[in-house]
Amino acid sequence: MSRDSRFKEAADRLGYSFDDEIKIGGNYVPLTRHGGLVFVSGQIPRVRDTVVVTGAVGAEVPLERARMGASICIMRALALLKRSLGSLEPIEGIMRIGVYVQSAPSFTQQSEVADAASDLLLSILGADAGAHSRTSVGVIQLPKSASVEIDLVAAVAKG
Amino acid sequence: MSRDSRFKEAADRLGYSFDDEIKIGGNYVPLTRHGGLVFVSGQIPRVRDTVVVTGAVGAEVPLERARMGASICIMRALALLKRSLGSLEPIEGIMRIGVYVQSAPSFTQQSEVADAASDLLLSILGADAGAHSRTSVGVIQLPKSASVEIDLVAAVAKG
Amino acid sequence: MSRDSRFKEAADRLGYSFDDEIKIGGNYVPLTRHGGLVFVSGQIPRVRDTVVVTGAVGAEVPLERARMGASICIMRALALLKRSLGSLEPIEGIMRIGVYVQSAPSFTQQSEVADAASDLLLSILGADAGAHSRTSVGVIQLPKSASVEIDLVAAVAKG
Repeated sequence: MSRDSRFKEAADRLGYSFDDEIKIGGNYVPLTRHGGLVFVSGQIPRVRDTVVVTGAVGAEVPLERARMGASICIMRALALLKRSLGSLEPIEGIMRIGVYVQSAPSFTQQSEVADAASDLLLSILGADAGAHSRTSVGVIQLPKSASVEIDLVAAVAKG
Repeated sequence: MSRDSRFKEAADRLGYSFDDEIKIGGNYVPLTRHGGLVFVSGQIPRVRDTVVVTGAVGAEVPLERARMGASICIMRALALLKRSLGSLEPIEGIMRIGVYVQSAPSFTQQSEVADAASDLLLSILGADAGAHSRTSVGVIQLPKSASVEIDLVAAVAKG
Repeated sequence: MSRDSRFKEAADRLGYSFDDEIKIGGNYVPLTRHGGLVFVSGQIPRVRDTVVVTGAVGAEVPLERARMGASICIMRALALLKRSLGSLEPIEGIMRIGVYVQSAPSFTQQSEVADAASDLLLSILGADAGAHSRTSVGVIQLPKSASVEIDLVAAVAKG
């Protein structure tokens, strides 16, 4: 099965479509490219105009809901790469993901939230291209009170 | 008008000069370069020896004041690039900026703070080189209680 | 003295060995490589199965203890590079380190925590390869309640 098909399957399982235009706020661009590196802007779990997972994880938001949020963030990042590259096939690797979790002071499972995004990268892109380095931290707030934000750096075939 | 002239104009509008040596604390360097990529260290709104915007945004610090802080951070980053490259002209693009906002627990306008930096990049470098990816998060504290910190990765002509 | 010998000396001074396998949690890899860049995942001060410096710096954890935590984080990152490259000699430079300090709301010495890591990079890798850009921020929590987390981007000879 192709990466694009696995992406579609994962989107269906989440119950969201990532085919629409992906809006970002503010005066910047979804991704930049230099040589073989692509930098994708921080993604929050927004579906069309609504941020669907908001609030502090470990307080209002339980772990499983935060993992859903992380899944939407990484699917948005992949959708942006797919749109820019025409397909997910040109991705040679995911160099790094940064996972920012809006955390209650006592919440220490940022890695478990991030695992939801990591698992999707591996299942959609495969063990080679999907293997990535990762940094997960707990922050006090995020734009629009999103529970999770994820950015990434990808390697693509030089164009 | 050249980028360097637009930089000077923006500095005049802010009411600060970025011609002096830009001090950074600690045992590291303002920027590093590898191939066509330049990494600029996190900049706080310091003017000479004084951090001019401090405190939690949304509590002691209103949005407009935080946006001023973000403007100073990005001007410092550009000043460091200008000094290192001799001018802003060799900048091919800004790959990414990271915007860290010292946030009150209920403050969710990190993007609006970051927009001040994004607007300056676009107005000084132009729509092509100034277009950048961005990640904005709310943190509990920053060095010297700065209200904002910004770092960036730029692409420059290989030297 | 070689970099690897200086690394061993620094480990001895800290009182920890970094020769064992370095475990990371979750579904990702310790480092990725693309061209001349290596991205190392966020490291917390874990020794074997135990995170040895936990809690909020400025509250439960004093500055000196947090600096010890930062030292362990950067030694782990170097140990991962050493294992992957066979030695620390192929490192051409450290482009950037990101230092995340679990901070009490009033703790503003994130730079002083990060200096412990910066000093080790310079003393082990030397003034040229050890010189790095840096971003230090204060976060509300970290995985497993670690007091510090550090990630980095290194430049290595293209293989």
